[in-house]
Amino acid sequence: MAPLPSTTNSLTMAPPPSTTISPIVILIVRVLTFISLLFSVIIIATNTATSTVATSFGLIDIKINFSAFYAYRYMVATGVIGMAYALLQTAFTIFYVTTGTRFGGDGLAFLDFYGDKVFSYLLATGAGAGFGLTVDLKQNDDSETNSFLNKAIAAASLLLIGFIFSAISSVFSSLSLSKKAV
Amino acid sequence: MAPLPSTTNSLTMAPPPSTTISPIVILIVRVLTFISLLFSVIIIATNTATSTVATSFGLIDIKINFSAFYAYRYMVATGVIGMAYALLQTAFTIFYVTTGTRFGGDGLAFLDFYGDKVFSYLLATGAGAGFGLTVDLKQNDDSETNSFLNKAIAAASLLLIGFIFSAISSVFSSLSLSKKAV
Repeated sequence: MAPLPSTTNSLTMAPPPSTTISPIVILIVRVLTFISLLFSVIIIATNTATSTVATSFGLIDIKINFSAFYAYRYMVATGVIGMAYALLQTAFTIFYVTTGTRFGGDGLAFLDFYGDKVFSYLLATGAGAGFGLTVDLKQNDDSETNSFLNKAIAAASLLLIGFIFSAISSVFSSLSLSKKAV
Repeated sequence: MAPLPSTTNSLTMAPPPSTTISPIVILIVRVLTFISLLFSVIIIATNTATSTVATSFGLIDIKINFSAFYAYRYMVATGVIGMAYALLQTAFTIFYVTTGTRFGGDGLAFLDFYGDKVFSYLLATGAGAGFGLTVDLKQNDDSETNSFLNKAIAAASLLLIGFIFSAISSVFSSLSLSKKAV
């Protein structure tokens, strides 16, 4: 038997299956990003420690919160910005899931691609900053700082998890770009 | 005049121009990544400070280097791993530039894509950790720590620059993926 003519087939073929990701999976990853960042921000923003300091009035207790540390302020900033982006993308993805078409058409695929890259890198630096400060502060850990630093580690871990989900979204939007290009 | 039959054309068309990046540009970005990381690692690994500490023998001067801080060890680790990867990719790109074909064929495009993503994220967390620790240590800066911390900021800045170049490589390899898919 002669081989079938395959030229037409190969020119009109569907995109490779590996680049087709269900919108539901995309939506779930966006929502998980948002939830991780939300808990990270809540934990770090409500984290307080009491420190006894010597003043002209004698020893007094002062409250210390995240804003005393630049790294924790940066964590909160990246977490909040990441949440806003994840929420926006969640809305777009819900639109996609319910209507079957992408908001703004396929032209926005490049915006997703670059947006996901920028915001996932931002979250990576935020998680890095959180761990970078906290792990070394833990070297001088005492009863006054122990709970504060443990919560900071928890918040940094959640930021790291949020970053990993956003990195997965970034892989999806890159692969989706190659699907659009076909 | 009747419109030309465009079906054949659109099916066999070349990839969009925006996804065609000159191999020379790709090579330059890889080399710049390597150089930035090399200088970052040299600066942080040779950075030392002298601190006067009270011991049972009285006051003595001790040398402190990067290994006293987890964040700086992590910076060195990410910098060295990033350098090894940038060097490997530089070799592949030189092969591409000189022979006109990709080492291992187009099948390695996916490896570039995922590799660039992973290593650029790694460098982002390394830069984040470096700044996260150093910026807050600068709050307690004194004459003994000033030079050490300034060099740490310089090393973290070079790591950040290396990360930005690696992120550009990652954009290239993602776009190249969509070119391969056509």
